[in-house]
Amino acid sequence: MTTLIKNGLVLSADGATPMDVLVDGETIAALLPTGSTALGDLETTADRVVDAAGKYVLPGGVDVHTHMELPFGGTNASDTFETGTRAAAWGGTTTIVDFAVQRTGERVMDGLEAWHAKSEGECAIDYGFHMILGGVDDDSLATMDRLVNDEGITSFKLFMAYPGVFYSDDGKILRAMQTASSNGSLIMMHAENGMAIDVLVQQALARGQTDPIFHGITRPVAMEEEATFRTIKLAEVAGCPVYIVHMSAREAVERVAEARGKGTNVFGETCPQYLYLTLEDHLGAPGFEGAKYACSTPLRSRHEHHQKDLWRFLRTNDLQVVSTDHCPFCFKEQKELGIGDFSKIPNGIGTVEHRMDLLYQGVVDGEISLTRWVEVACTTPARMFGLYPRKGVIQPGSDADIVVYDPQATTQIGVETHHMNLDYSAYEGFKVQGRVDLVMSRGTVLIEDDAYVGTKGHGRYLKRDLSQYLA
Amino acid sequence: MTTLIKNGLVLSADGATPMDVLVDGETIAALLPTGSTALGDLETTADRVVDAAGKYVLPGGVDVHTHMELPFGGTNASDTFETGTRAAAWGGTTTIVDFAVQRTGERVMDGLEAWHAKSEGECAIDYGFHMILGGVDDDSLATMDRLVNDEGITSFKLFMAYPGVFYSDDGKILRAMQTASSNGSLIMMHAENGMAIDVLVQQALARGQTDPIFHGITRPVAMEEEATFRTIKLAEVAGCPVYIVHMSAREAVERVAEARGKGTNVFGETCPQYLYLTLEDHLGAPGFEGAKYACSTPLRSRHEHHQKDLWRFLRTNDLQVVSTDHCPFCFKEQKELGIGDFSKIPNGIGTVEHRMDLLYQGVVDGEISLTRWVEVACTTPARMFGLYPRKGVIQPGSDADIVVYDPQATTQIGVETHHMNLDYSAYEGFKVQGRVDLVMSRGTVLIEDDAYVGTKGHGRYLKRDLSQYLA
Amino acid sequence: MTTLIKNGLVLSADGATPMDVLVDGETIAALLPTGSTALGDLETTADRVVDAAGKYVLPGGVDVHTHMELPFGGTNASDTFETGTRAAAWGGTTTIVDFAVQRTGERVMDGLEAWHAKSEGECAIDYGFHMILGGVDDDSLATMDRLVNDEGITSFKLFMAYPGVFYSDDGKILRAMQTASSNGSLIMMHAENGMAIDVLVQQALARGQTDPIFHGITRPVAMEEEATFRTIKLAEVAGCPVYIVHMSAREAVERVAEARGKGTNVFGETCPQYLYLTLEDHLGAPGFEGAKYACSTPLRSRHEHHQKDLWRFLRTNDLQVVSTDHCPFCFKEQKELGIGDFSKIPNGIGTVEHRMDLLYQGVVDGEISLTRWVEVACTTPARMFGLYPRKGVIQPGSDADIVVYDPQATTQIGVETHHMNLDYSAYEGFKVQGRVDLVMSRGTVLIEDDAYVGTKGHGRYLKRDLSQYLA
Amino acid sequence: MTTLIKNGLVLSADGATPMDVLVDGETIAALLPTGSTALGDLETTADRVVDAAGKYVLPGGVDVHTHMELPFGGTNASDTFETGTRAAAWGGTTTIVDFAVQRTGERVMDGLEAWHAKSEGECAIDYGFHMILGGVDDDSLATMDRLVNDEGITSFKLFMAYPGVFYSDDGKILRAMQTASSNGSLIMMHAENGMAIDVLVQQALARGQTDPIFHGITRPVAMEEEATFRTIKLAEVAGCPVYIVHMSAREAVERVAEARGKGTNVFGETCPQYLYLTLEDHLGAPGFEGAKYACSTPLRSRHEHHQKDLWRFLRTNDLQVVSTDHCPFCFKEQKELGIGDFSKIPNGIGTVEHRMDLLYQGVVDGEISLTRWVEVACTTPARMFGLYPRKGVIQPGSDADIVVYDPQATTQIGVETHHMNLDYSAYEGFKVQGRVDLVMSRGTVLIEDDAYVGTKGHGRYLKRDLSQYLA
Repeated sequence: MTTLIKNGLVLSADGATPMDVLVDGETIAALLPTGSTALGDLETTADRVVDAAGKYVLPGGVDVHTHMELPFGGTNASDTFETGTRAAAWGGTTTIVDFAVQRTGERVMDGLEAWHAKSEGECAIDYGFHMILGGVDDDSLATMDRLVNDEGITSFKLFMAYPGVFYSDDGKILRAMQTASSNGSLIMMHAENGMAIDVLVQQALARGQTDPIFHGITRPVAMEEEATFRTIKLAEVAGCPVYIVHMSAREAVERVAEARGKGTNVFGETCPQYLYLTLEDHLGAPGFEGAKYACSTPLRSRHEHHQKDLWRFLRTNDLQVVSTDHCPFCFKEQKELGIGDFSKIPNGIGTVEHRMDLLYQGVVDGEISLTRWVEVACTTPARMFGLYPRKGVIQPGSDADIVVYDPQATTQIGVETHHMNLDYSAYEGFKVQGRVDLVMSRGTVLIEDDAYVGTKGHGRYLKRDLSQYLA
Repeated sequence: MTTLIKNGLVLSADGATPMDVLVDGETIAALLPTGSTALGDLETTADRVVDAAGKYVLPGGVDVHTHMELPFGGTNASDTFETGTRAAAWGGTTTIVDFAVQRTGERVMDGLEAWHAKSEGECAIDYGFHMILGGVDDDSLATMDRLVNDEGITSFKLFMAYPGVFYSDDGKILRAMQTASSNGSLIMMHAENGMAIDVLVQQALARGQTDPIFHGITRPVAMEEEATFRTIKLAEVAGCPVYIVHMSAREAVERVAEARGKGTNVFGETCPQYLYLTLEDHLGAPGFEGAKYACSTPLRSRHEHHQKDLWRFLRTNDLQVVSTDHCPFCFKEQKELGIGDFSKIPNGIGTVEHRMDLLYQGVVDGEISLTRWVEVACTTPARMFGLYPRKGVIQPGSDADIVVYDPQATTQIGVETHHMNLDYSAYEGFKVQGRVDLVMSRGTVLIEDDAYVGTKGHGRYLKRDLSQYLA
Repeated sequence: MTTLIKNGLVLSADGATPMDVLVDGETIAALLPTGSTALGDLETTADRVVDAAGKYVLPGGVDVHTHMELPFGGTNASDTFETGTRAAAWGGTTTIVDFAVQRTGERVMDGLEAWHAKSEGECAIDYGFHMILGGVDDDSLATMDRLVNDEGITSFKLFMAYPGVFYSDDGKILRAMQTASSNGSLIMMHAENGMAIDVLVQQALARGQTDPIFHGITRPVAMEEEATFRTIKLAEVAGCPVYIVHMSAREAVERVAEARGKGTNVFGETCPQYLYLTLEDHLGAPGFEGAKYACSTPLRSRHEHHQKDLWRFLRTNDLQVVSTDHCPFCFKEQKELGIGDFSKIPNGIGTVEHRMDLLYQGVVDGEISLTRWVEVACTTPARMFGLYPRKGVIQPGSDADIVVYDPQATTQIGVETHHMNLDYSAYEGFKVQGRVDLVMSRGTVLIEDDAYVGTKGHGRYLKRDLSQYLA
Repeated sequence: MTTLIKNGLVLSADGATPMDVLVDGETIAALLPTGSTALGDLETTADRVVDAAGKYVLPGGVDVHTHMELPFGGTNASDTFETGTRAAAWGGTTTIVDFAVQRTGERVMDGLEAWHAKSEGECAIDYGFHMILGGVDDDSLATMDRLVNDEGITSFKLFMAYPGVFYSDDGKILRAMQTASSNGSLIMMHAENGMAIDVLVQQALARGQTDPIFHGITRPVAMEEEATFRTIKLAEVAGCPVYIVHMSAREAVERVAEARGKGTNVFGETCPQYLYLTLEDHLGAPGFEGAKYACSTPLRSRHEHHQKDLWRFLRTNDLQVVSTDHCPFCFKEQKELGIGDFSKIPNGIGTVEHRMDLLYQGVVDGEISLTRWVEVACTTPARMFGLYPRKGVIQPGSDADIVVYDPQATTQIGVETHHMNLDYSAYEGFKVQGRVDLVMSRGTVLIEDDAYVGTKGHGRYLKRDLSQYLA
């Protein structure tokens, strides 16, 4: 089965070139100048021809931060691997890397098995796993090596937040980092000072400050900045690279930029919610509405102008990746667990379907270039997490994960139209320029003519290599 | 009883001026132009005349960081309040502020009483107390207010190091800082990441790295820098000023400088050992000799050139105070507790007698100016800890704590000649320019003609005001 | 003739202490604890007693940047040495350092003689001179040594602005700096990129943008920042200290702060106009009103919030001195020369009378501390320009230049009440807290009971020493 | 004519992928997975097959800074377009961008015509021109637009050095930048403070310091840093991007990094000589040998460790491009013009043949990654100067400028073996890992089997687009 995608403008992290793409089976078989007949009349010989005239042809999106079915705060994230990966496909994302979880007191391998059990045979697109280490001890450190060597899991997430749940103290963090240093894997960090934040949370609740906005107010910028810096310094002692997840505060990214300027292998990720939503406008919405926007790190103050700086950091490569931290909880019954006590609101926002579109709007707005869009959403995530050149690039031999994107069409975001299993949209009413036209995963079309034509279980588990991004 | 100190060059933090100083009783009664007879022939009428021609007349030194008789590692610092304050007097220091101690599990007030019991009636010079909080809880937080209001204790020290002994986690630190913010007191921080350091210490011992130099190697610069930054950020959240003790690493002070540049009330202290001694030359001395130089923060590497930068930070006022962290342990039987296990070496160096001389050598070497010598050793410590203008300045009404200093003479430092109760000198063989000629405390001469003529119990407990240094 | 100033709170750069001050003849004879009778009953024996109860007693202000009678743009600054120094006295300033001028094509010594001729016998208060070098050549470089050695002129001002009038290219600047390096004098710099600014000015005029606000718009922040940085780097090559005058832009002072942080002897001065007035509110006033506020560097944009940062830099000692750059031109006939062409407006604002009051308002507003007020307005200017301890401090032997200041009274500023020879006030309508109560110059009262009781010619020329401020 | 380059590892700025490359005529016709037969049996059907097994296949190098036949100091650079481009081909460089020159007093179009006359029909590889503006006036500003619109010249070089020859004052620079801002072209800057440097040069000569090393000593780091900062600030005022050529000093690049961190479009270039040669070892060689290494900016001091930081800046993308600044002068008769007066040594080093090899050695040494090698030497230069995707990338439709590189072979550099018209080698005796195996320009093989098989005049003039690199 061959497909010719012809007449499109093919995008990479370096440039945009008119080219035809020949797909054969699951991979890309050839790249050719537009209309080339060097290989014969492909329009005739190809099993299928897609005309991408006037459209962009780009690598399928790679979202390296999702939490399908995550148990949190006594409930589960509302998207299963089935619904969540289907929604991802709708949005032009063809690979996710989800987080398998070890909680304090549990064994790492048990967590991994549980995640395989949840995802196996369910996914619309390919998927890999990071491992959350919620309990650093001799067993979990030994298991890190095993996961790197045997299981294709080459990145491990630690938490400076959530004492009692996921929290590791600095000694444990250092030990896990030392292990990463020895086996070449990448440490990912939730960088917020949870010990201090928990004091602020308890003080706020004691003062009767229970509304959702206090979720944000009790997680100050300085505590994200502090934890980010601490992460960098611990990584320096351990001699390992480190990747900070879901950064929302300018001051925190400035610490990443400072360390990178000195040549340190520190990386930063942000998410669409931090580029578009704010503390006052969303988390501070009237009544309990703000609960829809409760996530950690929290949305930041409009008055502090973090968004313009986050876009700037994306331009300057001080932030390298945009993921979603997709972790949806329905407003009814789930978010509502936090009525009267913001600390009980399940943390998370559902964005997996909208990442590519929300970032393309940044291109339209002049915030990032067209090549940078592809770089932060496709190429760098693949390189960072050991999936390149299989994913993240349109190149002969790569998996035929391809998006045809129409820059002239528009996308209207909202609960009525989205495909996530979520009873509200954090971006309700957003109308953005650009629209996913066709989505292909390993040569199979998933989205076409505004319809999902994929199949549950098409998606395969990806054993990942070590990061290819480190200098 | 009046004393005229005539013909000297009187030093202040701003300048050097030829003046005569009239002391009446315990205080300074008048400053006059040299040889002035506006007030009559003082040479005749004064009870005593000291001719300071060719000499400096400066405020008595204020050493705000001493640990007399401190219990540590199963032994006690070898200087009692009697021997330690007498040695201080020998070196031109007329005020110390020592640390009363609350250990984990003890009550603050008990610690304070114990310290009064040890010091009352023992001291050669005036003394005050900071309070170490080794256990932040509701009782100790309430007691902070009481100490500020009733006991003249307006500064509180917390530890990020020494888990299980003095360590406070970030939540406890934040609570203590909030209390300081409300009552106006000053938080002092031992800024080293003890959780991470303890991992490194255990790993080193497990590898058989037991020599004293590993005390330094397991306490990396990055862990001082990290803790310093964390201190600053927690203080920012609490809205309180903060003072970092015994800073030894350039990178850590750079964090102080950065925050100060933004207008934050962060202060830094260093000590003579960090200005003169190094990891390789001293802590790494052959055999077990290095144990003499074990202190925390540790001596830093000669190859990293911290000393030239510490002097620079003193010039630029990014470091404000030089204290001694005087905490002597004899080599025999005390330091020797750490043979075969560097982590059991009692931490500390005895310097209380040499601070003024070692800093004056910095003037001779061109590292700091004459006025800056007085500022970092006398005036700023007094202002920082609420003792000004009683201490730290030569001014009418101030306590007549006065040093006549001979810039032409020299001082030879060593165990044979020093007056501390310590069987070695960390500065053995140092010969520095300048010499203490006469020392007066509240109008009473303590040191004269190379003899101690003071009396035990002359020194009084000082109830201190809130800091006068904050912007 | 002796005067006892009793019961006041005496201010210095380090603190505030209740003391009595005895003046004998032209100098301070003694400082005593309040009410001291150690020297007899001074209230009876003194020729005069001033009761300063409830008031501050501080050193007379030292304004190191004035331009009395300066020829500029075809007219002369409207204050003569007589009127200008009298106004200074009204405002609590007892020393000025004015700028003698060498223009391009003139000889340095001729300029100095002209300034002596204008000032001799005219002044109400003591005065010194800096020398402006408008033409760096072998003769003027040789004359620099002579001025330092014989004439008490130890500071030299160069211009990066005003091509064709005062401008020196970088080669000339370097040569003058090398001479300063060899003779120990201090280079002062007007740091604006005049070559670029002149292009912008001509382009604006060509576009018909002739209103006063374009004076500010054509002198962008970046061109002050650039010139400041260039000054620092040239000084680094020459090995000399350097003092940047009238800094108005945060970004420029940040360059000073950065260099100071590395230990460089770079100093910065700002002026009250930059702390209180803005581009939009004042230079952009309707019609031709804005001309009243035309000065260089220009007032900066309100939207960029420079003022809060200038105050911060004063707190952090990244700015060391506040002078006035007093250079008044009447609105009628003088400022009006620029109607229809902003580049013809004589540059300057008259502030010599208001500096102490406007800065004290900063104390009231919490921007700077009481000691810092004295430091930036009195002590540091005196130290910086070789007048300490004769000026800038209340100390036995110093000149009895003393201000009694009433912190409870208020001062209303405006053309009706000021004493400068100027037909408008840039601060019209300002009502500030604090008021000059009594002013004494070398023991002679100049201002008392809201009246000027001094005499023309009382003020003497001051031969200055080399700077005493350098590290 | 088709060529199949099979079995190689194809390099791009993002990654390394095993692929086959099909060349048809002058361009790349297809990229295919290694050994793919999707397009038939290319090994049989292709006119030629190159087996690149075990080798890298990378885009031909793009050297954007050469000076063939440049008249300088009374002589001409020793490589003609014929000899220089042939040597470039030997070294794997298939595109140069040379500098056409307008000197002070000449017309821009005359300079351009002269450069076309020198190069037309002479070159072995494709070539473009930047234009040096040595006289900014109304005519040259107008001509800038014409060159951009009609001549394919989209970058203009200005000099802050060489007063009287190429120097532009800041007003002229600003005007040229404003024009670039309006027509979208890129300003390139030689950033050294020539006015100050000329003073230092004259002073050195006057002191009898005539040896080559004084060429370096009279061009201090601070004067490169200053001019770099000035360039950035002037560009900020003009609102144009700017590219700093041949950066050698860490401190200067730090200013670029600082500005880039704020989002400014500032770019920096360094050259192999700054990565490998030093002031003391080379410019300071005994006798007159140092003259071989005289170039501006000069080689920097070994003791200041610039090289490790230049490599770091290449890693962190604070430097984007490595060019050669190829400007060879023979030692005999040319460099010798400076015997007895270093200021008369023609400035320049010949490196055009060695850039790719010297940078690959950086890969071997771990200084930069394999992808970064391609990025700084091929892809970014092409994007920066409007040649992408025609040059700088291996992609269907691109010019078939291809290098097959053998990472196992070695290259010995020296005058005996090099192909530049130069009687010495600045890198004599260097033996580096890696070797150019085959070089193809627009489908024509130039270098093969250690022989040059190209033809004079094959190279065509490239009309360039506007830069594609700007954010």
